[in-house]
Amino acid sequence: MLSIGVDIGGTKIAAGVVDENGRIIAGAKRRTPAQDPELLEQAVADAVRELREQHPVVAIGIGAAGFVDADRRTVVFAANLAWRDRALADHVEALVGLPVVVENDANAAGWAEFRFGPAAEADTMLMMTVGTGLGGAIVLDGQLVRGAGGFAGEIAHMTAVPDGQWCGCGNRGCLEQYTSGTAMVRSARAAAATGDPLLEPLLAAAGGDANGIDGPLITRMAREGDPGAQRHLTEIGDWLGRGAASISALLDPEIIVIGGGVSAAGDLLLDPARAGYARTLTARTHRTVAPFAQASMGNEAGMIGAADLARHR
Amino acid sequence: MLSIGVDIGGTKIAAGVVDENGRIIAGAKRRTPAQDPELLEQAVADAVRELREQHPVVAIGIGAAGFVDADRRTVVFAANLAWRDRALADHVEALVGLPVVVENDANAAGWAEFRFGPAAEADTMLMMTVGTGLGGAIVLDGQLVRGAGGFAGEIAHMTAVPDGQWCGCGNRGCLEQYTSGTAMVRSARAAAATGDPLLEPLLAAAGGDANGIDGPLITRMAREGDPGAQRHLTEIGDWLGRGAASISALLDPEIIVIGGGVSAAGDLLLDPARAGYARTLTARTHRTVAPFAQASMGNEAGMIGAADLARHR
Amino acid sequence: MLSIGVDIGGTKIAAGVVDENGRIIAGAKRRTPAQDPELLEQAVADAVRELREQHPVVAIGIGAAGFVDADRRTVVFAANLAWRDRALADHVEALVGLPVVVENDANAAGWAEFRFGPAAEADTMLMMTVGTGLGGAIVLDGQLVRGAGGFAGEIAHMTAVPDGQWCGCGNRGCLEQYTSGTAMVRSARAAAATGDPLLEPLLAAAGGDANGIDGPLITRMAREGDPGAQRHLTEIGDWLGRGAASISALLDPEIIVIGGGVSAAGDLLLDPARAGYARTLTARTHRTVAPFAQASMGNEAGMIGAADLARHR
Amino acid sequence: MLSIGVDIGGTKIAAGVVDENGRIIAGAKRRTPAQDPELLEQAVADAVRELREQHPVVAIGIGAAGFVDADRRTVVFAANLAWRDRALADHVEALVGLPVVVENDANAAGWAEFRFGPAAEADTMLMMTVGTGLGGAIVLDGQLVRGAGGFAGEIAHMTAVPDGQWCGCGNRGCLEQYTSGTAMVRSARAAAATGDPLLEPLLAAAGGDANGIDGPLITRMAREGDPGAQRHLTEIGDWLGRGAASISALLDPEIIVIGGGVSAAGDLLLDPARAGYARTLTARTHRTVAPFAQASMGNEAGMIGAADLARHR
Repeated sequence: MLSIGVDIGGTKIAAGVVDENGRIIAGAKRRTPAQDPELLEQAVADAVRELREQHPVVAIGIGAAGFVDADRRTVVFAANLAWRDRALADHVEALVGLPVVVENDANAAGWAEFRFGPAAEADTMLMMTVGTGLGGAIVLDGQLVRGAGGFAGEIAHMTAVPDGQWCGCGNRGCLEQYTSGTAMVRSARAAAATGDPLLEPLLAAAGGDANGIDGPLITRMAREGDPGAQRHLTEIGDWLGRGAASISALLDPEIIVIGGGVSAAGDLLLDPARAGYARTLTARTHRTVAPFAQASMGNEAGMIGAADLARHR
Repeated sequence: MLSIGVDIGGTKIAAGVVDENGRIIAGAKRRTPAQDPELLEQAVADAVRELREQHPVVAIGIGAAGFVDADRRTVVFAANLAWRDRALADHVEALVGLPVVVENDANAAGWAEFRFGPAAEADTMLMMTVGTGLGGAIVLDGQLVRGAGGFAGEIAHMTAVPDGQWCGCGNRGCLEQYTSGTAMVRSARAAAATGDPLLEPLLAAAGGDANGIDGPLITRMAREGDPGAQRHLTEIGDWLGRGAASISALLDPEIIVIGGGVSAAGDLLLDPARAGYARTLTARTHRTVAPFAQASMGNEAGMIGAADLARHR
Repeated sequence: MLSIGVDIGGTKIAAGVVDENGRIIAGAKRRTPAQDPELLEQAVADAVRELREQHPVVAIGIGAAGFVDADRRTVVFAANLAWRDRALADHVEALVGLPVVVENDANAAGWAEFRFGPAAEADTMLMMTVGTGLGGAIVLDGQLVRGAGGFAGEIAHMTAVPDGQWCGCGNRGCLEQYTSGTAMVRSARAAAATGDPLLEPLLAAAGGDANGIDGPLITRMAREGDPGAQRHLTEIGDWLGRGAASISALLDPEIIVIGGGVSAAGDLLLDPARAGYARTLTARTHRTVAPFAQASMGNEAGMIGAADLARHR
Repeated sequence: MLSIGVDIGGTKIAAGVVDENGRIIAGAKRRTPAQDPELLEQAVADAVRELREQHPVVAIGIGAAGFVDADRRTVVFAANLAWRDRALADHVEALVGLPVVVENDANAAGWAEFRFGPAAEADTMLMMTVGTGLGGAIVLDGQLVRGAGGFAGEIAHMTAVPDGQWCGCGNRGCLEQYTSGTAMVRSARAAAATGDPLLEPLLAAAGGDANGIDGPLITRMAREGDPGAQRHLTEIGDWLGRGAASISALLDPEIIVIGGGVSAAGDLLLDPARAGYARTLTARTHRTVAPFAQASMGNEAGMIGAADLARHR
């Protein structure tokens, strides 16, 4: 039984036929008409049509950045696309004649890790996606947690530091301001700009301009053993672990999966996360401390997860 | 279909026959043999036998303070009773010949509020119990969240303040150190001891001794309009709301129920909680802001919830 | 005995003949040649010459934003002017043939308040200047505190919140990020942008655009009784008082003078500062709690203070 | 020209004849009659008389824990002795017929380091005394800073963490709760009690009882290379440096002297303090970063400093 997963990004739409083992059998791409929801839906339908010519599919799952309602049909709000309360599932169903579900992209990617990745043996999972920002997905007893209005899993906006760094969401001290690629780069740039000698190699590698320091550079130099770069991965890793410990006090997950672009740093990020977690997890002498695993489904996790969710309930 | 709920406290055991509407039909009490698990189990069995003489029951639910495993059979650890990995359900089943489930007491009380209290119409609920400490219960899509090892719902030990007040759990800055009866009393005593003029009426009512200030006194004087007492309810109410906002970023509950002894203060606690929540809830212009409701099931919530959970799966 | 005070701002140079009672007898203005230190020094000399034609003066005091060395002769660094290790006093002395001292502008303004303003009766004073940023001046036993390298009084960059808001200085959580006009406006804009109902009048007065909210608008509406505007003055006032309490643990000043543009709000700023101070001052039952007074020397404080400092030692 | 320094401790009174180079020429000891101020003054006078039999002295300086008024004559409040507004200088002068000054003990010890210790070449010094608690002394331009009421130098009670650990002074988050022997021991015990594997050697050395861990044990094991012990010295060292950076924003000292019992750990404490200082000092690329030096005057610093202060003004 095949289904199609569609990952709507800010610049391109990636669709794929996915089998029951999470394998992508065929793919199709379109540009994203970001300003016109109707054109966007037609582009999705068009990619779906192309794939259905060769493959019999039973359902369509669409992953999109933004708030999706709890019924998985409507995009309530998306920061990067021209959607406000857009009945995306209805519209695409009308165009393609197949059942459609819509899912927040972090949820879709988390689901792929839960079904086919490092959490495949678990019932209960916390996924934390460390990219430019911080995303999250929660699976409890085999069910993706969506919340009353579809807003669950916004781990980025738990408060990590009262009166801390202002966040774009309008609050202060959100966890995303302390553990994300943006947080890491900001911290490294500030240290470099104030003449921290540990940052000299990183600054030199950025051509002497602190603003030239970016996430991939930090990760690369950290891997090469540069202590300045490692410090900044450690810093966000520690906060990642501390955030995971707060979430575990609430939800007691069996496994914690770390994905997103920054997770490419592997144990340079995960080891400090494990340390921060172990240090701040409540009742840690009485319980099994959850393992941290690196996500394994890569950039296609969103597509695969959306396809799989379309098949399930 | 009737079941028996048993609430094991530090000093007494309260058992009751509970019907499907959450009504208590009959009750029995015993002292708690806190130091001897075997005697305690016999006391529970004895109370159950007394109740069964008059009432046909199908199951027993036991609520107990402490960590209960995810299978709801074993008490892993209890701070106040002599239990370590005690197979409580097995033992009581052997004594009474009926199916037994064990549940953390905060979970049991939360379940009663979810089934028969202010959350009866909701699918998804966060309960926060503000007593001496801070307890929690989470219901998502009609299911009580227990976590992989039965440790879920420990909202007390989310980190509210990095490097904050040390907690008995070995961490710093746990939410319970900022919103609980103990936190309120500690704050009021400190203010009174340092000569804060706003605290003079409270100090006078405590006979001039700051250590004489306790929770019931603060609540009573706050109700009578004393601004000093109200300030300290407001302080923990604000933290309660801020904690609820962090949890809502994760779980997006439909309703937030506030119980526990301090919740007797009503809106003097709930209004600042609502304000702290609204101020720090992410994306609050795009979503429905969850209402705060006062728990309604009273001291018997644990017994009623345990009985009801024994009937359900 | 008369002296001349010169206040070098980003756009204009204001010079004045000041008598021993801090009164300005005559004034002269020039544009600031911000990009050319030599032209700037000539402009200062030119204004001085104009004033000396009518008035016999014995010394020149120059107040400038930036770090001035402890000898009061060299501008080490100035953010807004093209100065790096500029021997300003030497150059102007050569041009005008009179003794010249240079002083940080916040120090000069603080000195004016100490000599002729609300601290005239005190020996020991803390001045906090709440404008766009946060400035400070400390007088102990009648002496302006300059520090080993002339960097004392930078109250803006004490840490108020560990891991708090990033500051332009490269650190996190600096006091200036919590108590300054910029901090107040940022907080009010964020609250307005997230739909806080208390901010609706302020948002309406700003034409519906959160970015239209500025400091003078907040102050005006706070004076008219708007609770939203008052809240944001209260917020920075509370931090102002808490910062003053930390400083008082160190220095135990006799009086705290609050100046700067935001201090025009008067008790709407000072009352919450007093409350935050009283709440967090150590040993407050054993000591005299320092009064908070509004600065009285206005925009000319820097000129008057610089002139007076030129006369003294 | 000789003077006598008297150090009044909780259990014994140590007096010494001190020469102009800070050398102790002769000493005398008495027990402290802690509950009777009059007996205590007689004991001081008695020790002074014993010393004067052999040595001509011109003045007496008394160092005492507690708040001493700005005139250096009256003990306003002392936590450990039965003094409230006690005119100590008057009483001892009447008994011995020599000029007497009273000084806070941390100030007296700091003065000794300033005059004869590592700060002997400096004009401006910050001293931080890390013992059970945290003491401080500030010298600016060669003058000990006492403040308007004699309360200056209480660095322990600057706020390090808003809403942080409660302090005995009635406030929250005081620096002393983060950098002091007590803070170090509390942190190590908590880590050991929660099963932190890094703490196993320290726990074993304490006989398996977390409460057996104390400051000298941590210091000894840290010196022997134990990473768990080192971590806890590093933790309080980092806060020490961060506190010093906040103070330096205000006062810009030339040198920072670290004394007290915990400073016996040397660079195991000072290196992390230097790192925390460098990381959080504002404008550090534009200024000379103050060196950290270990105090050198030992336990007799208070006596020597008090004697020297009695000679000066």
